[in-house]
This record gives sequence, structure tokens and C-alpha cells, in this order.
Amino acid sequence: MTALPTLLVLDAEPPPRLGRLTGRARVVHTDETGLAGLLPGADVLLVWDFASHAVRSAWPGDGPRPGWVHTASAGVDHLMCPELAASDTVVTNARGIFDAPIAEYVAALVLAMAKDLPRTLEFQREREWRHRESRRVAGTRAVVVGSGPIGREIARTLKALGVTAAVVGRVPRTGIHGPDDLDRLLARADWVIAAAPLTERTRGMFDLRRFGVMQPSACFVNVGRGQLVDEDALVRALEKRWIAGAALDVLTSEPLAADSPLWRVPGLLVSPHMSGDTVGWRDELGAQFVELFERWVAGRPLRNVVDKQRGYVPGH
Amino acid sequence: MTALPTLLVLDAEPPPRLGRLTGRARVVHTDETGLAGLLPGADVLLVWDFASHAVRSAWPGDGPRPGWVHTASAGVDHLMCPELAASDTVVTNARGIFDAPIAEYVAALVLAMAKDLPRTLEFQREREWRHRESRRVAGTRAVVVGSGPIGREIARTLKALGVTAAVVGRVPRTGIHGPDDLDRLLARADWVIAAAPLTERTRGMFDLRRFGVMQPSACFVNVGRGQLVDEDALVRALEKRWIAGAALDVLTSEPLAADSPLWRVPGLLVSPHMSGDTVGWRDELGAQFVELFERWVAGRPLRNVVDKQRGYVPGH
Repeated sequence: MTALPTLLVLDAEPPPRLGRLTGRARVVHTDETGLAGLLPGADVLLVWDFASHAVRSAWPGDGPRPGWVHTASAGVDHLMCPELAASDTVVTNARGIFDAPIAEYVAALVLAMAKDLPRTLEFQREREWRHRESRRVAGTRAVVVGSGPIGREIARTLKALGVTAAVVGRVPRTGIHGPDDLDRLLARADWVIAAAPLTERTRGMFDLRRFGVMQPSACFVNVGRGQLVDEDALVRALEKRWIAGAALDVLTSEPLAADSPLWRVPGLLVSPHMSGDTVGWRDELGAQFVELFERWVAGRPLRNVVDKQRGYVPGH
Repeated sequence: MTALPTLLVLDAEPPPRLGRLTGRARVVHTDETGLAGLLPGADVLLVWDFASHAVRSAWPGDGPRPGWVHTASAGVDHLMCPELAASDTVVTNARGIFDAPIAEYVAALVLAMAKDLPRTLEFQREREWRHRESRRVAGTRAVVVGSGPIGREIARTLKALGVTAAVVGRVPRTGIHGPDDLDRLLARADWVIAAAPLTERTRGMFDLRRFGVMQPSACFVNVGRGQLVDEDALVRALEKRWIAGAALDVLTSEPLAADSPLWRVPGLLVSPHMSGDTVGWRDELGAQFVELFERWVAGRPLRNVVDKQRGYVPGH
């Protein structure tokens, strides 16, 4: 008999679908405080609590450690650290699960802003019948920053609504613009969608200068990571009407504190990091991990392997 | 020299684009009170104020009257009366102008309800970070009641988002279901969209029985005419959670009175009859009328001719 591999799960509660691993793994749950002590004895780490940054500080600099880390999220910024990047540990992510839900969420935000829906709801609350003209979406232009599967699916969904959508990635390739095109595209866009991974290249990329390049009629949407955006610069751009509106589903600090001024910036819609989380998403994440685990046990190549230097899964 | 035709315009202000008729028509403006006195001397009536029902009572039972009436709206319910229907006066409408804007508006409402956007805005006002799961739109089912260009464009737009959309019309034909299929389709639909003309057949068709047929998870949207819906029945259906939500862009009484209970029904979104009115719509309506006027002057057949018995432009 071979010893069962130890699967360490970073989360207070058992993830769904992991019952299928019964008898095939020794499953150990931990919270953030127990993580450092348990990592050396684990073969696999499942980062189910994707809001936790505990892996960064708990990762062992040397000695035994898991050979594989999987995160139930698209982004890996919350767990990457130089020691993990330098190690031979394989990191995988939840690539694929969030693409279509996030694309629909972006379409919902774009259409809501075009049709002035937030103000309609305000007028309803005030019992005021205020007819206004609204904007067509077809025929407008979007630029999607982030050329992974999420960004590309956002572009595809907006195109289905008649929007001309350009995608910008780190490297230009067929159908994808490179960083050199970004400012020109921003200057023409009606909708600017941030859907990039958080890396040292993308951190703070939406700053005062870039908001200044955008059209006064443009709206900005962030469904990537809060730290892509200089939030002070965004507030200033909205206050000075450099842009017409914005929606942030991700924020530099989550959950957003009740006393944050961001809750009440005119023209800014704030939602609680929910764009990808449609009914059944936790089941899908659990099933995806089980499938990867079965590959790993069988010695077959894993999917969704993150390039630890770049900070995302390279691909098409 | 031939006498210029008299164009009577029902509206307080001059519509855009009619300057092109200078020297080709004697343009007379009137409000509702002056309408009856001026109708006998008019060759053409342009009903620009589509919210007015004055034509019904002012239309002459006999004697001279306009040979052509155009309304700057898709619906003709506000002007049709037995005398007009029985006369040889031609009635035309604004077919085509509102199709795509209304379809986008419906997509905005469907996505907003799927993504729980109204509650997100409430939580934002309360400074509460409340993550929830939301619904996918792709893979859901819609039934669109109304098989004119607006209903068909709504179906096309929802299909572009991955929704299975069935269209129901007065008569079954290729790609269009007949009334016999309606209840079965309602019972399976996630989204029920009312986009039918208001006729004696459609008045009050969304009643307590029909809301009772729908799924508890279904949402109802009305962008047709308020009188398609028994509003009391809709409120009861929402209160009893027979359906999950509703959005009314059109209401039985417009503008909705400030003391109407409809402003504050949980799960009901009310907007001020604005779904078709995107920036530039008045220009488009004016240009459309000028084009029809030029046809009429040249003796060429008019387009968008309403079947006065049915109450809409019959078509494909």
C-alpha cells in the first residue's frame, strides 16, 4: 500500500465536490494561522479561500513543501511570492470557470450605464417620472485590457451587442493589440474594460494620465483586480468629468470599508467582487480541482499551469 | 401654381428636420385644444406628441379631413377610433426607428435582473459589501410576446447573449409561435417580454392567470404598452412570489403619479417610457416623416401603412 497524498485545503469550510477524493487523499483543512505549520507536510495545497494572502508569508523558503498549488481563482496575485516563483512547485488556476460569467457581468454594466439605469432607480426611489434620452450600445467602441480568456470573452460578448471591441495584451499577436496601441485605443473608446491579471507591469496602470487620455463620454469598468487602478486618480477623473462614469467590481481593499469615500462618488458604481460568481460556481471550481487532482495522481500533465514569472497562464 | 398642402402638426414645438419641407407644405402647429377645429382644413396630420390621445375625440365623423395621418411612434393605439378606422384615411407609423434601441433596453433589463444590479445599487447606498451569487443569462429561455420588428429584434439581441428566445404573434408562421403556444412557453420561460401592440386582443393579456403560469424564477418585462398588463395582478404576483421580478417601462397611466403604489413594489423596476428613445431619436423620427412626405407628394406608395382593423403594420 502506498501512503495517500496529503491535500492541504486553505479554507474554513470543506469545498464542494471534494468528497470524490475520499480514500484517494488525506484531506487536511487549515485556516490562515495554521498554514505555515502544515505546508511542509503537504503534497498539494488547494487555496480555496482566494481572498487570503496567507500563502505569501507562509510559503517555506526551503525544505519540504507541496509540489503543486492550485487556486480556485483566475488571478494568482494573492499567493505569488519570490520563494514560490523560484521553487519547482507547479501553480495552477481556475482558468475557464469565470470567463463567460464575467463577460455577462461586463455587458450588464455597459448596458446599465448606456441606458442610465442607476439614475432610473434613483428617480424611482424619489417617485419621479423623468424621461431621458439614453445611449445606443451598438456602434460604440470598447477597449478590453487583458488578453486572457476572460478579456477575450468580454470582447466577444460586447461584439455580439454590436460594439467594436479591441483587446490589448502584453504582446501583440493576431487579433490582440500590444501596449503601444493602448493610449490611442483609450482615446477613442466609449467603454474601457480592465480585465488584466495583477502583475508588476499592470499594477496602477489606470492612473491619472490614462484617465486623462479617455473621452469625456467614456465609461471605465474594472473586473480584474483593484490594484490595476489608482483609485484616487479615478475619483479625480470622475469629479472633473474627464470621464462619464465608472464601475468597480474589484477594489484595492476588499471588502470595501463602510467609511470609504468610494461608496458615494457620483457616477461610480461599486459592486462586491461578484462578477464571476454565478449560481453553481463553487461546484464548478470543486469539480475542476478534482479533475486536476486526478491528472496529478495519474502522473499526467496538469492543465492551467501558471507561468510564475509572468503571473498568469500563458496561452492563446 | 398649385396650392401647398397643409400639414397639421400636433405638438407644441416644431419637430426637427421639418425645415426641409419649407416651401413644400404649409405647416400649421396645434395643441390638443385646437386640433378639432383645424383637422377639416388639413391634408396631412403629423401626430408628433405621441402621448396625446386627442386625435380619437377630435377626428371628424364626416366631411373634409386629412387623407394621411402619421404618428411618430410605433404604437397607434393612442389615435385609433372607429371613425378613423372606417375612413379612407391612410395611417402610417414610425416602424423601424425603435427596434434596436428597445432591444438593447430589454437586454439591459434582463442582464440587470440576472446580475441583481438593483440590489447592488441599494447595498452601495447603504455602504454594505454584500457578495451574492448571480444568474447566468446564456442558456436561459425567453418568450417575447409581439412578432413585429421590435419583438423580433428583442429576440435577436437576446439570442446574441446565448438566450433561447421564442417569439409569439397573432398568427403562427415560420419562426413565430401562435397564441396556442403561449401558456406552454410562459411556463418554461426565465424571461417574459411584452412587446405587442395594444389591440382589443392584447389588452390586459398579462393577467393573474398568466402570471400564475410563469415560473417562480421568471422575470417579466413590459416595453409594449401599459394596458397589456393587469397591473394589480402583477403586483399580487410579485407579492406572492409567483414570479421573481418585473420591469415596466410602460404603464397604464403615464406619467405615473407620484402617489402610485407601483413606485415601491419590491422586485419591480419602473422606468419612464424611455426604452426606444436613444440620443438622436427625434432627428430620426423627423427624417423618417420627411421621407414619407416626399413619397406622398410624389404620389408614390407610402411605407409603414397601418392595418387599421388590426392596429399595427402587418409584416413578415
